[in-house]
Amino acid sequence: MQTFFRYNWIVREQWYEWCKDLPEEELLRPRTGGVGSILQTLFHIVDVEWSWIRRLQGKPDDLENFDEYASLQKVRELDQRFKPEVEAFVAAWDNSMESRVFYDYRRDGSFDMDAWGEVMRHIIAHQIHHMGQLSVWAREKGIQKNPVSPNVIGKNLIAVQQK
Amino acid sequence: MQTFFRYNWIVREQWYEWCKDLPEEELLRPRTGGVGSILQTLFHIVDVEWSWIRRLQGKPDDLENFDEYASLQKVRELDQRFKPEVEAFVAAWDNSMESRVFYDYRRDGSFDMDAWGEVMRHIIAHQIHHMGQLSVWAREKGIQKNPVSPNVIGKNLIAVQQK
Repeated sequence: MQTFFRYNWIVREQWYEWCKDLPEEELLRPRTGGVGSILQTLFHIVDVEWSWIRRLQGKPDDLENFDEYASLQKVRELDQRFKPEVEAFVAAWDNSMESRVFYDYRRDGSFDMDAWGEVMRHIIAHQIHHMGQLSVWAREKGIQKNPVSPNVIGKNLIAVQQK
Repeated sequence: MQTFFRYNWIVREQWYEWCKDLPEEELLRPRTGGVGSILQTLFHIVDVEWSWIRRLQGKPDDLENFDEYASLQKVRELDQRFKPEVEAFVAAWDNSMESRVFYDYRRDGSFDMDAWGEVMRHIIAHQIHHMGQLSVWAREKGIQKNPVSPNVIGKNLIAVQQK
């Protein structure tokens, strides 16, 4: 589980770096599909990751409002603010938590039951999915800049064991 | 590891079903970013998954040519042909394989070393990334059909343990 979170955090940093060279109007331009702009996508990834980790812990998870974070600098600051709590939770993950139940209540009192292992994978896939969207937008008129590589291999995530 | 593969196979089937209602010309239309068309993306996912599993086993992995599979029916048939070998490998996965070394040779004899656990996560992330691209194209003019949900939760992947 930790490996995929580390992968996501590396790639996220690379997207932040990628954004640096673009004018803010391209970062904020409304795009087809997804949650809207490039910057709002990065914000959304940060916000959703933290919110799920909060909810698993039974803590309040008020979603942030993008209007207050509509610059690369502010999204990165939000990420830095949220990251320690997420990292601590991920670091403490062990397999016994996989099937632990999370009650996802609706306003009317009904609920879904999700396994913690499903929620963690949901967070992981959520970022990869949205970054797939970024990779399309990166090729659009006005940007046309090679997107960040989504490769898992080549990032030294797992030390190999040579025979 | 198995959970994410099961997730990917479920979502892939849902994309096949999603494609059924679209005219073939939309499925084959060249798109911005990614590997090209919707159908070629699905083909690419199937092809790459199988190829990596073959390579981990030290078996030949000749990549297929999309020209021979340019219909939904043919991509699904290819998937069905490749799936048993992939499923067997995934089913037999255990944690002791995580750091096993895979030598990725280039033509000039130089090589990279990847851990098997990295390769398996690479396969998983590869599909999710490309399906994020499909989700953008699904909103484009000529389609505008709700994309398949990338949610991990709600798919009964892990049985919860109630206290």
